[in-house]
Amino acid sequence: MQNKRWVLASRPTGAVGETDFRLETVPVPQVAEGEVLVKNLWLSLDPYMRGRMSAAKSYVKGVDIGEVMVGQTVGEVLESRKAGVAKGDHVLTQLGWQAYGVARDVSKVDATKAPLSYYLGCLGMPGMTAYFGLKEIGQPKPGETVVVSAASGAVGSIVGQLARQWGCRAVGIAGGAQKCAYVKNELGFDACVDYKAGGLQAALEAACPGGVDVYFDNVGGPTLDTVLRLMNVHSRVVVCGMISDYSAAEPFGVKSLRSVLVNRIRMQGMIVFDWKDRYGEALKTLGGLLGEGKLKYRESIVEGLEAAPRALIGLLKGDNFGKQLVRL
Amino acid sequence: MQNKRWVLASRPTGAVGETDFRLETVPVPQVAEGEVLVKNLWLSLDPYMRGRMSAAKSYVKGVDIGEVMVGQTVGEVLESRKAGVAKGDHVLTQLGWQAYGVARDVSKVDATKAPLSYYLGCLGMPGMTAYFGLKEIGQPKPGETVVVSAASGAVGSIVGQLARQWGCRAVGIAGGAQKCAYVKNELGFDACVDYKAGGLQAALEAACPGGVDVYFDNVGGPTLDTVLRLMNVHSRVVVCGMISDYSAAEPFGVKSLRSVLVNRIRMQGMIVFDWKDRYGEALKTLGGLLGEGKLKYRESIVEGLEAAPRALIGLLKGDNFGKQLVRL
Repeated sequence: MQNKRWVLASRPTGAVGETDFRLETVPVPQVAEGEVLVKNLWLSLDPYMRGRMSAAKSYVKGVDIGEVMVGQTVGEVLESRKAGVAKGDHVLTQLGWQAYGVARDVSKVDATKAPLSYYLGCLGMPGMTAYFGLKEIGQPKPGETVVVSAASGAVGSIVGQLARQWGCRAVGIAGGAQKCAYVKNELGFDACVDYKAGGLQAALEAACPGGVDVYFDNVGGPTLDTVLRLMNVHSRVVVCGMISDYSAAEPFGVKSLRSVLVNRIRMQGMIVFDWKDRYGEALKTLGGLLGEGKLKYRESIVEGLEAAPRALIGLLKGDNFGKQLVRL
Repeated sequence: MQNKRWVLASRPTGAVGETDFRLETVPVPQVAEGEVLVKNLWLSLDPYMRGRMSAAKSYVKGVDIGEVMVGQTVGEVLESRKAGVAKGDHVLTQLGWQAYGVARDVSKVDATKAPLSYYLGCLGMPGMTAYFGLKEIGQPKPGETVVVSAASGAVGSIVGQLARQWGCRAVGIAGGAQKCAYVKNELGFDACVDYKAGGLQAALEAACPGGVDVYFDNVGGPTLDTVLRLMNVHSRVVVCGMISDYSAAEPFGVKSLRSVLVNRIRMQGMIVFDWKDRYGEALKTLGGLLGEGKLKYRESIVEGLEAAPRALIGLLKGDNFGKQLVRL
C-alpha cells in the first residue's frame, strides 16, 4: 500500500513558503509487534509547527530536512498488533502530515462522545493549553479582567469562554471586524479589539476600564508590548505563543518590560505537556461545558493532504478563522 | 534653625544633570504632637530615585517639581513629641535629601548592633530586597546557578553571598576588572563577568556551564536580553531593577522573550515593600551572617549634602563601588 506524506524540504528564513515542503509517495511500513497501522482522518495545524521547521533550540527537537512534518492526527486503526487497540478503533496520534502511518504511541478517542476532530481542538491540545494556562498561570479571580490575543483561534476562543465561566471580564484581541464580531457576539466575550484597525492601546484601554489582570498571550511582539502597559499591580502574563515572531527574520524588541517591575507582574512561559498528568481534569471541565452548550467552538477546514502547506502558511498569517484542520 | 535641602528643579529627559536639582535654605518646621525632629546623619542613594524624578507612572507617586528629593536617612532625634521615641535615639526615616526634618513615621535603629549606615544597606532596604527577591521569587535550590547583575552593588553583592550560603553557584555581572575581582575574590562568588569587556554571552556561557537557573536582574536592557538566552527550563528571573533603562531616552527593545516561552521561564517583578510584614525574618538572617563574618559589605561614601546630586548621577552610570551613601 502506498502512502503520501509531506516532508520538510528546506528551513524557511522568515515567512514559510510552499517550497519548504515536498510531497512524497512511499510504501506504508510493516506493522511490528506493539504497533498499529492508522489511516489518518484529520490533521491538526498549529502555530508551534513553525518553530519545529527551524533549527533553533526549542522545547523539543525540530524536524530534520527530509523528515515527515510533525503534527497530531486523529485516525482509524486498520491493523493492530498492540494490546488494547483493535481494528476500527479511533486514535489520537503524532503521525504528522501523512495519509497513513505506523505508530506505537496512540490513545483511543470516542467518536460517540464528540466529533473526532474535536480531539484535536477544544478537547485536545488547544483546549488543554487554554485550561491549564489560564487556570494555573493566569490564576484569574472573579471580577478580574482577562485579555487574550488570537481570540478567535483554537486556544484563545476557549480562554475567553473559560474566563467568563470563572466570573471574569473577557476581552479578546483579533484581526478584522468579522473575527471581532464573532468573538463578541457568538463566543460571548465582553469586548473584542481589532488589532488591524490601529489604535490598539486606546481601544484596549476603553475595553478594559479597570486595567488588565491576566493577559493570555498567543502572539508576542507589538501586541504584548502594548498590553504590558495596561497591566495592573500583581497581574499575570501567560506566555503561550509568539506567532508574530515565528515568521519574522528578527524578533520584535519589547520595550515595556518596565511594567513588569513597576507592577510586579508575573510573566510565565507555558507548554501544555507540563500538565500531561492532569489532562483528565481539563477534559472533564471542557467536555462538560461542551455538553451543556456553554462552549462554542469553530473549525476552519481544508480538504486533502495536498492543501496542508498552504493552510499552515495561512494560519501563520492569521487567515484561519477558528481551529485549523485538514480533512484527509 | 535653618535647614538645607535639595529639591527637584526639573524632570530630566535621559541622563540626569546637576541642574535638575536646586539647593534651598529654609527654616526647620515646628514639631507637632506625634512628630520628631531629626538631624540626618546618613542619606542613602539608590537607583529607584531616577524613577521618582520622572512623571511616568510607577509604584508610588513621583517627586513634584520643587519638592524635596526622596530618600531614606538614618538620623538622630533632636526633639520628640512622639511616644516611644526619645531625644538622642537613632531612627530610620524617609526624610529625603535634607539636613534636618520633622517626621511622623520613624523606626528606631540600634547603633550598638551595627554601624548606623548599615541600616540603609545590608540591614536595610537593599538587604531586604536581596533576601526576599532571591528567596521568594528566585526560589533557588542547592546546586543551581544564580546569576546577578550589578553584582558589586548594594543589592547584588548580598544576592550572590546568600546564593552561596544556600548552596548555589553564584555568578556576578559587573562593570570593570576591579569590581569583578572584588566580587570574586572578596565576596566569594564562583565567577564574575565584566560586561564592559565585550563578549558577554560567551563569557557567561563559560561561567555557567550548566546554564542559568535564577537570574536576579538589577539592570534590564541588553544584559537581560543576553542572560535570557542562557536560561534553563523552568528557570526564574527576578526583575528587581532596570537601571540601564532609567536614564535612556527610549527603553531598550528586548528580543529574547521567546526563551520565556520555550523554557517556561517565570519572570516576576518585585518591590521590597510587598514583604514589609516579614522584614524581621530577613534582618535575623542578614544580621546573623554579618555577625558571623559571613556577609561582606562595602560602602561608597561621599561627604556632605552638597555632594548628593553628583553622587546620584555617578550611581546611575555605575561609578559607585558598593552601597552609595552621603555622610551629612
